[in-house]
Amino acid sequence: MSRTKIHLLCFCLVIGLCHARQAVAQTKAPSLPPELAKDLAALRDAAMASDYAYRQIAHLTENIGPRPVGSPQAEAAVQYVAGQLRELGLEVRLEEVRAPRWVRGLETAELVDYSGHVTGTAQKVVVTALGGNSPTSNDGITAEVVVVRSFTELEALGSRAVSGKIVLFNVAFDKKKAASGYAGEAYDESVIYRGQGALRAKALGAAAALVRSVGGADYRIPHTGGSRAAGIPAGAVTAEDADLIADLSSQGAVRMHLVLTGVMKEDVKTFNVVADLKGTEHPEQIVIVSGHLDSWDLGTGAIDDAAGVAVAMEAARIVQQLNLHPRRTLRVIAWMDEENFGRGHEAYARAHSAEMQNHVGAIESDLGAGHPMGVDAHVAIAARDRLKPIMQILEPIGANLIHSEEGSPGADIEPLVSAGVPGFGILQDARTYFNYHHTPADTLDKIVPRELQENAAVMAVLGYALAEMPEPLPRQ
Amino acid sequence: MSRTKIHLLCFCLVIGLCHARQAVAQTKAPSLPPELAKDLAALRDAAMASDYAYRQIAHLTENIGPRPVGSPQAEAAVQYVAGQLRELGLEVRLEEVRAPRWVRGLETAELVDYSGHVTGTAQKVVVTALGGNSPTSNDGITAEVVVVRSFTELEALGSRAVSGKIVLFNVAFDKKKAASGYAGEAYDESVIYRGQGALRAKALGAAAALVRSVGGADYRIPHTGGSRAAGIPAGAVTAEDADLIADLSSQGAVRMHLVLTGVMKEDVKTFNVVADLKGTEHPEQIVIVSGHLDSWDLGTGAIDDAAGVAVAMEAARIVQQLNLHPRRTLRVIAWMDEENFGRGHEAYARAHSAEMQNHVGAIESDLGAGHPMGVDAHVAIAARDRLKPIMQILEPIGANLIHSEEGSPGADIEPLVSAGVPGFGILQDARTYFNYHHTPADTLDKIVPRELQENAAVMAVLGYALAEMPEPLPRQ
Repeated sequence: MSRTKIHLLCFCLVIGLCHARQAVAQTKAPSLPPELAKDLAALRDAAMASDYAYRQIAHLTENIGPRPVGSPQAEAAVQYVAGQLRELGLEVRLEEVRAPRWVRGLETAELVDYSGHVTGTAQKVVVTALGGNSPTSNDGITAEVVVVRSFTELEALGSRAVSGKIVLFNVAFDKKKAASGYAGEAYDESVIYRGQGALRAKALGAAAALVRSVGGADYRIPHTGGSRAAGIPAGAVTAEDADLIADLSSQGAVRMHLVLTGVMKEDVKTFNVVADLKGTEHPEQIVIVSGHLDSWDLGTGAIDDAAGVAVAMEAARIVQQLNLHPRRTLRVIAWMDEENFGRGHEAYARAHSAEMQNHVGAIESDLGAGHPMGVDAHVAIAARDRLKPIMQILEPIGANLIHSEEGSPGADIEPLVSAGVPGFGILQDARTYFNYHHTPADTLDKIVPRELQENAAVMAVLGYALAEMPEPLPRQ
Repeated sequence: MSRTKIHLLCFCLVIGLCHARQAVAQTKAPSLPPELAKDLAALRDAAMASDYAYRQIAHLTENIGPRPVGSPQAEAAVQYVAGQLRELGLEVRLEEVRAPRWVRGLETAELVDYSGHVTGTAQKVVVTALGGNSPTSNDGITAEVVVVRSFTELEALGSRAVSGKIVLFNVAFDKKKAASGYAGEAYDESVIYRGQGALRAKALGAAAALVRSVGGADYRIPHTGGSRAAGIPAGAVTAEDADLIADLSSQGAVRMHLVLTGVMKEDVKTFNVVADLKGTEHPEQIVIVSGHLDSWDLGTGAIDDAAGVAVAMEAARIVQQLNLHPRRTLRVIAWMDEENFGRGHEAYARAHSAEMQNHVGAIESDLGAGHPMGVDAHVAIAARDRLKPIMQILEPIGANLIHSEEGSPGADIEPLVSAGVPGFGILQDARTYFNYHHTPADTLDKIVPRELQENAAVMAVLGYALAEMPEPLPRQ
């Protein structure tokens, strides 16, 4: 996940599940056709008994590895996922995406002068480059660091104080907010500095911009991510290093030597993987189940977002396994370039603009693989009652909540949602998601197999229900 | 802390505090002279009101930085601590220590061939060198990795399977054991592979030895530490990378390219800082309060062990602040070279061998700065009752437990304890200590100011009591 997404994931909600369940039980929701209800329960149970999704993540992360756009690994992942989906009997197409390729380079930083500095030494600063910005030379730059806690503070300093300096946006991720369930809100509050910081600093003549890593870990790991191109080097330092620099700055001028040689390359040709399980009655009507296949390069992209791709694949696999044949087409998409420029979903929206009206639902999982409490439903109000009996199937695994967050349910399905297509994210427990997200620690061990199965169950049940229910949900 | 130390730190103990308190209340312990009891309470309260220890750690970690033996930072720290202790009015000596200097070099690793490997790519492995072993060339070595889970498994493989290979000891730190309070025990169980692994692998002809990081973090950070010199390169990979290698190895041969250029340099001249607050009646009798000043180089050595040095300094400071004049000499020691070869305490034992009998007590804090539950007392049985009223002073801060762990109460006071001197460690809550210990994340933010004050209170109360009580504790 790379984009702003306000994600309400409150502990209260977890506790509130009991109440939600009661509410479902008490409300007279329209019931499902008995055959559909039985099939949905079978899909749920099959998902909970399968290790297919886990094995997909293991292959994508361990055998293939990090999958930044344009890398050999991303291309291998495209071929691998396409092959797996063909093996499931789906009609697979690779749909072309042209996207910029950003390649990480050297990245080092050290404080070379500050109060109490021991002659001949330098304090190492752990830094990582943000995608999409400009490099330093291999020799790097040396400049004073200006520490600010907001854009307001930056503007108040003005260009005289900022020009030629390295600006550090030292805005802490609100760990308490994240731990109490509002991880997305905590993310949004600080990620604006990652996204906009370089631009705002450049406007005042800064030589480079750094952001305090956007995430809750306290293990001195840096969080990469995208930043709006400003034409200056941009990076993230760890929370610990931001504290160090801020503490030393409060005692006097701090000079940093900074090397960030990551560069933008020419656009590459890459692909969304699009795989159809054709509908029996309305093959032209499409329900998307999806995640994104590209990842950042520091970790191996397990929670962000091999997990999303894997549960979408699993949804199709168990529909096949149970020999179900939905009325509408169930389309698995493994999106490309979610993390950087969103060229994957742009290409899809362009290529499929004529059939936008035929998309009857779209689901994306892109907030990890924590326990799902239900769905983030971006649907017409009239659709909510019709969702209830579907989600009730997920009650035994505690995933029956229907909630509507602010913002998008998923970056890649945003164009569809904007066009009125009922859109869904999965309401994962994301309390620790942003500790690992975009870091070297986004690795296979962060996947809890049981929770992954729950996510696959949500994807399969909702995806199949949307493809099979007698009438599609009303558009927004 | 570098050495094996069985540290019982059970949640049961925390809960058991109530019982311990009751036990103290119910047992008729010998009482303290009222004046001493009053002074001890005043020392405790002064420690709880002071930020001196925290400021010392801040300076040592942020202004000076990592302090590996022989580094300019270690020497600056010696001068700084000596200066601070002189300012407190203590008699300060720098006592010479000759110690080997080990200097970290390049350290990279990548998997270059394995099942499913994407041509032209390599999977990055996060590795750090272990101190004291031999370097690879700058070009590194490339060899197959042999994964074992025990020395027994290694021996069973034999030299034919191991010769010329890179051995990975994939023994997981027992996180559950650590979380339930037995952090030291968990550490001991896996640290033998860090300490002995290279020697054992070399004996079978291995080209290099790697150990799964000894610690509980799951943030892909490597834990450095000492290893017995074997004449081959030795390193630690993160838990995540150990899993990756083990998973891929289960699918076929895994080849790694490994660069670890850390080297041993010539011995350097460095120092223990020894600072006396002379006793009024028996200046020749000595009570040591101490921590170690050297640190590993990845982090800034806040919990390991600027904290120990700082609480020892704080103990002396508040004795001075309260204008107390103990009968015996209170000696602050900031030890050098605890982490690598223990040359600091060896030099002290040699230089002070004639006065060993005059040492009446020794305390070292080297397990971080978590909430102290009491002391790890290595004393004669007859001494325990006399400790009770002293420790009772610490009951209001929940630090009154008297416990005796197996092993040493502190590496640097071990020679003293072996010579019969009553020796004490502090029973810190170490449940998360080994997540940060020897990693880049051992930084100032890991110090909780209130808990640090509690540690200073324990050091001050026990140190002063040993120096002032009418009769010294009996020797062991």
